[in-house]
Amino acid sequence: MAALLRSRFVGGSILKVADLNPLVLKAEYAVRGQILQRAMEIEADIKAGNAKWPFDRVVRCNIGNPQALGQTPPKFARQVLSMIMNPELLATGVSSYSTEVLERARTYATAIKGGVGAYSDSKGVRIVRDEVAAFIEQRDGYPSDPEAIYLTDGASAGVRHLTQLLLRGPQDAILAPSPQYPLYSALATLGNGSIAPYYLDEEADWSVAVDELERAYAAAAKAGNIPRGLVIINPGNPTGASLTREALDGIVHFCQRRDLVLLADEVYQENVYGTAPPFVSLKKVMRDLRADDVPLVSFHSISKGFTGECGLRGGYFELANFRTDVRAQLTKLASISLCSNVVGQIGVGLMVNPPTSPEEKSAYEADRDAKLDSLERRAELVADALNALPGVSCARAQGALYLFPNIEVPPKAVDAAAAAGLQPDAFYSLRMLESTGLVVVPGSGFGQKNGTWHFRTTFLPSPDDIESVVARLAGFHRGFLEEFADPAEPAHPSPSSDL
Amino acid sequence: MAALLRSRFVGGSILKVADLNPLVLKAEYAVRGQILQRAMEIEADIKAGNAKWPFDRVVRCNIGNPQALGQTPPKFARQVLSMIMNPELLATGVSSYSTEVLERARTYATAIKGGVGAYSDSKGVRIVRDEVAAFIEQRDGYPSDPEAIYLTDGASAGVRHLTQLLLRGPQDAILAPSPQYPLYSALATLGNGSIAPYYLDEEADWSVAVDELERAYAAAAKAGNIPRGLVIINPGNPTGASLTREALDGIVHFCQRRDLVLLADEVYQENVYGTAPPFVSLKKVMRDLRADDVPLVSFHSISKGFTGECGLRGGYFELANFRTDVRAQLTKLASISLCSNVVGQIGVGLMVNPPTSPEEKSAYEADRDAKLDSLERRAELVADALNALPGVSCARAQGALYLFPNIEVPPKAVDAAAAAGLQPDAFYSLRMLESTGLVVVPGSGFGQKNGTWHFRTTFLPSPDDIESVVARLAGFHRGFLEEFADPAEPAHPSPSSDL
Repeated sequence: MAALLRSRFVGGSILKVADLNPLVLKAEYAVRGQILQRAMEIEADIKAGNAKWPFDRVVRCNIGNPQALGQTPPKFARQVLSMIMNPELLATGVSSYSTEVLERARTYATAIKGGVGAYSDSKGVRIVRDEVAAFIEQRDGYPSDPEAIYLTDGASAGVRHLTQLLLRGPQDAILAPSPQYPLYSALATLGNGSIAPYYLDEEADWSVAVDELERAYAAAAKAGNIPRGLVIINPGNPTGASLTREALDGIVHFCQRRDLVLLADEVYQENVYGTAPPFVSLKKVMRDLRADDVPLVSFHSISKGFTGECGLRGGYFELANFRTDVRAQLTKLASISLCSNVVGQIGVGLMVNPPTSPEEKSAYEADRDAKLDSLERRAELVADALNALPGVSCARAQGALYLFPNIEVPPKAVDAAAAAGLQPDAFYSLRMLESTGLVVVPGSGFGQKNGTWHFRTTFLPSPDDIESVVARLAGFHRGFLEEFADPAEPAHPSPSSDL
Repeated sequence: MAALLRSRFVGGSILKVADLNPLVLKAEYAVRGQILQRAMEIEADIKAGNAKWPFDRVVRCNIGNPQALGQTPPKFARQVLSMIMNPELLATGVSSYSTEVLERARTYATAIKGGVGAYSDSKGVRIVRDEVAAFIEQRDGYPSDPEAIYLTDGASAGVRHLTQLLLRGPQDAILAPSPQYPLYSALATLGNGSIAPYYLDEEADWSVAVDELERAYAAAAKAGNIPRGLVIINPGNPTGASLTREALDGIVHFCQRRDLVLLADEVYQENVYGTAPPFVSLKKVMRDLRADDVPLVSFHSISKGFTGECGLRGGYFELANFRTDVRAQLTKLASISLCSNVVGQIGVGLMVNPPTSPEEKSAYEADRDAKLDSLERRAELVADALNALPGVSCARAQGALYLFPNIEVPPKAVDAAAAAGLQPDAFYSLRMLESTGLVVVPGSGFGQKNGTWHFRTTFLPSPDDIESVVARLAGFHRGFLEEFADPAEPAHPSPSSDL
């Protein structure tokens, strides 16, 4: 009977946490972690009429989810999708829709057998892959092969396929930035591999330095790990950094020298603000440098930019310098989940191939410019307000949807955090939530240099809300410093300038 | 330098198949495997005007994808979704839509902050989880907790989460049927675990016998494996079997005795035909038997039934007898991909909560009955035609969207298959494709008893096409037997009756 008994759950007959896959237990994803759980409890409290909170609603700045905070969906795309969704409307037409909407919807309906109700080929419908290839060719000035493009449920699903393909076991590592959007570390953990962190340079607008990549590579190798790929998030998440052309050149040469697969997370490519270095794709850099031996994957998404279509879950990745038989393994992985959702696939087509008729085009461009300008203004407003606070410094907002301010946590608060079993920035973020209703993500959820503390916040609250959000944040911060000030000396008499 | 060189790709600087995760290489998913690849090449050939094929189009019977073969989408649901997709339509209304469509769309729009363009909570929007819970309570007569319901991109994503949660390493196995829809074996392989097969009883309408479950359990344990869960697909895929209440009772008791998590794939619960045993959920059976120590997961999907909304990728799973802390681990897994697509989530709500106004309700029920009746007629037509062929026997069509006929492959064809490096049923299926354009899946892709050969076909070609599909299949089969007949004796003088 011994053999038969081995399947018994730990300590009795109900499945317990100790019975589960330890890799799942180990995986962390702070963007939807402990602070958000607490926020959801508070939301439930408020909904139940419990008046114990000093605010009337929770504002989720933990995640780049623009439409949840009032950003409008893109009009042309949604009109087309509404017709695709109900083929009756294609036949009858909708009086308020333009000819271009109708024609575009008909083009998709004709090209996609079974419409949005049928499984597509596992890579996604060909018409959209053709649109993506045309977009990439136009953007970069180099050919793009629709057969090397895979449509996915957001960019995340593509990252999952690639980490699954590359990580062979505990010895394998992927070089990834610290701080880092924790999708990569979560998927590496689930894939029984690990992340080898390279540190972004906070003093240089969170840039990537080749010396640091080499250090991280050597450290991983010394620890017995085999680096398999390099993740670059450009523009950065959580940092908002837009990398210079010089940094990008160095990255490609580094991958070439070290035989690494270059995983280019470029989902914020439309979100570059002001005088920041303009976006250049790593595919273009690779081709410019004739580095045709560097396997490169570029991820994009309809969730960010100015489309902000998070809930539709549309994305793609493009492979370059991948052998056909390696691509076939990715196609097999994609096929195991059958296909990505076809509405999201068409959403990708509508993002990369915007309207062209004069009327639709000018409305589209006006909407795009207004949304991007507004994001830029809000980014600057939040960054300025943060930099005006004692003990806070924040790199200028260059791109993406986030700021990642550095906070000096007073020693008394560090002690209080330890007593609560929390990292100091998690303690700070939890206090912020409970004082203001603002949800941010502690820097410790992304990784950061030892002894530094940060939090990530989006600047997505609507233009009407953003001033009050900033005021609440500032009020909280000053109160926090006061509460945890060392009684022996005045609390932060002047903004710190030596971080 | 030795350590640094270890990351070089095998035999040179370009990533090769030998460099990839061996678990990915090992995973198989025949439903979109070799035969489909060949079919896609042939489709490209035909599109290019190459007239070398004796048919003018490929008919994909390899996958349950009803709308790709002409089934219409559900009207009420699509009308609601078109309004949700474009909030303008909610304001202006659409003259041809009923009041119930408008009200339903407004209900979702009000309840879902940010609409379909915003990430939802990782488990899915609460309003739909409430609708699912109400549906389950109504179906089973037992309470259902919306907090134990997770909305997913089709059922497949939920199966992925559960296998990832349960499989801890190479020693762990999940008991799964043979033949089996190969999602389970693919995910077990990717999860570094394995499938312990139990054989379905072809002579008893492909039923599940507890003796056989015990045999498979003991065999797995003897081989050093730890069984963690039991997969039941009811109605069956690829077999179409609808299990009896007696079989279901035995399954629940078996899981209780052996401390197994019961994974109930019930995506075909609406697809039960004629005099087959009616569908009873394993949740109801578990509650009836007061087996409240059996952790149970039930998967459902909008892709099957009579909705057939494959491309929308909507599904859910319900957990029963799961501890809160174990559920939290699943929530974390779900959060790593942020959320399932929100259109698919609302699609689930529209499936489980159909219209109730007299006019909409009667149209909905007429459409449902017509679609299910038509499926049943086509199933019988295909089964009868198969059973009339020499060397073919096919269990009656009880449920799901598939038939899984048994074929006697002549010895000369077995030899020819071996010479081509193929399993006999793969050889047969490839020949069928190249002769008729019909795409089916070889039984060897699902698992089958040694020495038996099958293929899986859907009966989804439209009522207009199905007769010609059956005629082509029959013609091919007779020609195949003739081609590979033993010259010494007449080819299958009479239908075999002793299988």
